[in-house]
Amino acid sequence: MEKLKVGIIGFGTVGTGVYKVLQTIDNIEIKKIAVKNINKKRNIENFDETILTNDAFQVVNDPDIDVVIEVAGGVNPAFDLLKTAINNGKHIVTANKELLAKEGSELFRLAKEKNIIILYEAAVAGGIPIIMPVKTTLSANKITKIAAILNGTTNYILTKMHEQNLSYDTALKQAQELGYAETDPTGDVEGYDASYKISILSTIAFNKKVSIDKIYREGITNIKPQDIQSAKDLGYRIKLIAMGQVLEDGKIDVRVHPMLVAKKHLLAKVNNATNSIMLTGYPVGELVLTGPGAGAEPTASSVVGDLLILASELKTSPCPLPQTVCNHEEIADQIEIGDTYNDYYISINASNNPGAIGIIGTICGKNNISISTIMQKGINPDNTAQIVVITEKSKESDVQNALKEMLKSDSIKNIDNLLRVMN
Amino acid sequence: MEKLKVGIIGFGTVGTGVYKVLQTIDNIEIKKIAVKNINKKRNIENFDETILTNDAFQVVNDPDIDVVIEVAGGVNPAFDLLKTAINNGKHIVTANKELLAKEGSELFRLAKEKNIIILYEAAVAGGIPIIMPVKTTLSANKITKIAAILNGTTNYILTKMHEQNLSYDTALKQAQELGYAETDPTGDVEGYDASYKISILSTIAFNKKVSIDKIYREGITNIKPQDIQSAKDLGYRIKLIAMGQVLEDGKIDVRVHPMLVAKKHLLAKVNNATNSIMLTGYPVGELVLTGPGAGAEPTASSVVGDLLILASELKTSPCPLPQTVCNHEEIADQIEIGDTYNDYYISINASNNPGAIGIIGTICGKNNISISTIMQKGINPDNTAQIVVITEKSKESDVQNALKEMLKSDSIKNIDNLLRVMN
Repeated sequence: MEKLKVGIIGFGTVGTGVYKVLQTIDNIEIKKIAVKNINKKRNIENFDETILTNDAFQVVNDPDIDVVIEVAGGVNPAFDLLKTAINNGKHIVTANKELLAKEGSELFRLAKEKNIIILYEAAVAGGIPIIMPVKTTLSANKITKIAAILNGTTNYILTKMHEQNLSYDTALKQAQELGYAETDPTGDVEGYDASYKISILSTIAFNKKVSIDKIYREGITNIKPQDIQSAKDLGYRIKLIAMGQVLEDGKIDVRVHPMLVAKKHLLAKVNNATNSIMLTGYPVGELVLTGPGAGAEPTASSVVGDLLILASELKTSPCPLPQTVCNHEEIADQIEIGDTYNDYYISINASNNPGAIGIIGTICGKNNISISTIMQKGINPDNTAQIVVITEKSKESDVQNALKEMLKSDSIKNIDNLLRVMN
Repeated sequence: MEKLKVGIIGFGTVGTGVYKVLQTIDNIEIKKIAVKNINKKRNIENFDETILTNDAFQVVNDPDIDVVIEVAGGVNPAFDLLKTAINNGKHIVTANKELLAKEGSELFRLAKEKNIIILYEAAVAGGIPIIMPVKTTLSANKITKIAAILNGTTNYILTKMHEQNLSYDTALKQAQELGYAETDPTGDVEGYDASYKISILSTIAFNKKVSIDKIYREGITNIKPQDIQSAKDLGYRIKLIAMGQVLEDGKIDVRVHPMLVAKKHLLAKVNNATNSIMLTGYPVGELVLTGPGAGAEPTASSVVGDLLILASELKTSPCPLPQTVCNHEEIADQIEIGDTYNDYYISINASNNPGAIGIIGTICGKNNISISTIMQKGINPDNTAQIVVITEKSKESDVQNALKEMLKSDSIKNIDNLLRVMN
């Protein structure tokens, strides 16, 4: 094989970034690029527009193409396109986390059947090398825990809320103006994007198929300035954390939600749109990998890196290497959020009367919840008070029961927020 | 090929760690282990002592062995042993940074000739995956800069000097008692170990052979409590930094020396024996990889990871993959320390008279050195004063000339320290 011939599906920011980086590589030739709008003016020097098509099936059905790079995103039509590509014997490089999280099992099954390699370094944490290291250099390890910041948009918004005391709405608006958040920010701010990524990463790290449907997910839209302030006062920063862990009984706990992260923790120091992955395993111990999690150039670094790996594999070996094949026959036994154990931050709106703290303490005690800190954070104009509780490790279902019970008391007006804590 | 058959050279802490991890892996069989003292009692369960030999050539000459794991360290006899192993068609996994830094060119040349793979993830930064990511996932990048903490012993000593205001000698003694430093600590504290690692890493990152003989090297033995205190006062921490950069003219600047690192810099937050590598490239941007840089288990993670990569490569491919072959025909054009540009910290012992600061300022000016801060740090019993100068970016040879000129003045008693600064 001389020049590897590739087709690209998707020519937005990332696709254009990949195109530009490929111009610096000798042994790769771009045969076709599928775009949404073939008439759009492209701001690229010496660009040969004849390779554009608005029919992506022309890419996956082109007999000259060896590898399909899919950077369009979304499940449809990407799923059909990649199935067709695989059936046509083409290897795949994709950055599509949603597709892999939702339909990865079927794609990897088909790829195995057809002796096809699918690489997807760019689907998790953009430019940070994590998929390939877990599959190769770290493959002697039993990885037991991942805690990560996998979404740049929410980390940017939370950083601004911390640094400039902004409300969520104002910070979101700023992020949108600067291009860090999309017009419809749902996929990021509700934690969908992070949940796709942690499902992919925990599947390869724990070597069992982690189902996206069973990942508990909570976004950042309910984080209030008073939570940020309380977190600061207590020595924490609020971060959207994607985590996965193997429990002692072998069950798997994977979830995405905001957490109060202790200020001295390395993840608390990761700001703006940067991503970071903390990984714990035996024998390696604890690793922290930090870098740009999105954007045209970091994503292109991973996409083209995968392509070069593929080029070198195909040059020497007629069949896919074991470490490039995903094949997780075993299904993870994922636990419900109610069965997880955490430290908690509870923000309670209570009547400003001397009994409120006693009621909270009593209800927590009855529900097996040890309180480590309880403090009143100030009186509101309506003569209610914000009371903040930090608990020791407790079972989520116990905490949920306690909160229900508290709401039955006349003294407790509202549970303003419940967040988990990482020390 | 069914079970991969391996021989191990070296059965100290790391060798034993590798042995233990290999007990958890199915498709690897240990045929022979070369030890220094065959009669030493080994504290390992169900250990078959018949695989031990005190003649390492029995390992490299054993026709049954496919892969030689070398974790003995040092140039001799490892160099002869590995050349023999390669000539006998055995693939190599090694953690031996000194051997690779000093004799890597010859080993890789021979390996290429004989179609042999040499993997050495454990030689740089212990358990942190860095060699394989640079060769594969990051291979689309032009890497221009590395700044790293690559020696755990010195980072541990400097951390204790910062946190407990210890002298170098006391901190070293503590590190020795806790097993973080060897009885003869020269290799670590004088920066040799870090220089071997940065020569290996910068060679693969910059894709040009970086010569260990041309790496400027300075250890931490001259760091005094007054330097630590001044660094703290100015918002810095002192770290032993291994760095490499590609200059605009294509020349390469690689060196190891202590630096004042700004407190907000991620490397300033890496404490105790932890290692960290900051890597800058296009298109990826800036990555920071942090983790355990030494110790039996993290080293075993990388050694066995390499072995599993090798096992999977050999299963599908009869010849070495391009990304597993090191072949740096191009020699790096490395600059001398005198030609580098840095910000500087200069600690000066001067007469306690009003003219001293004027003399320092005048001499700096004459030598093209802009001062950003100059401060007197207190009066000594002998009526001399410590004066600390922080410069803007200046040429090292200009700074060295200025220091020589200062020493000719009656007011300047001594240059106590000259350190470089990273903001």
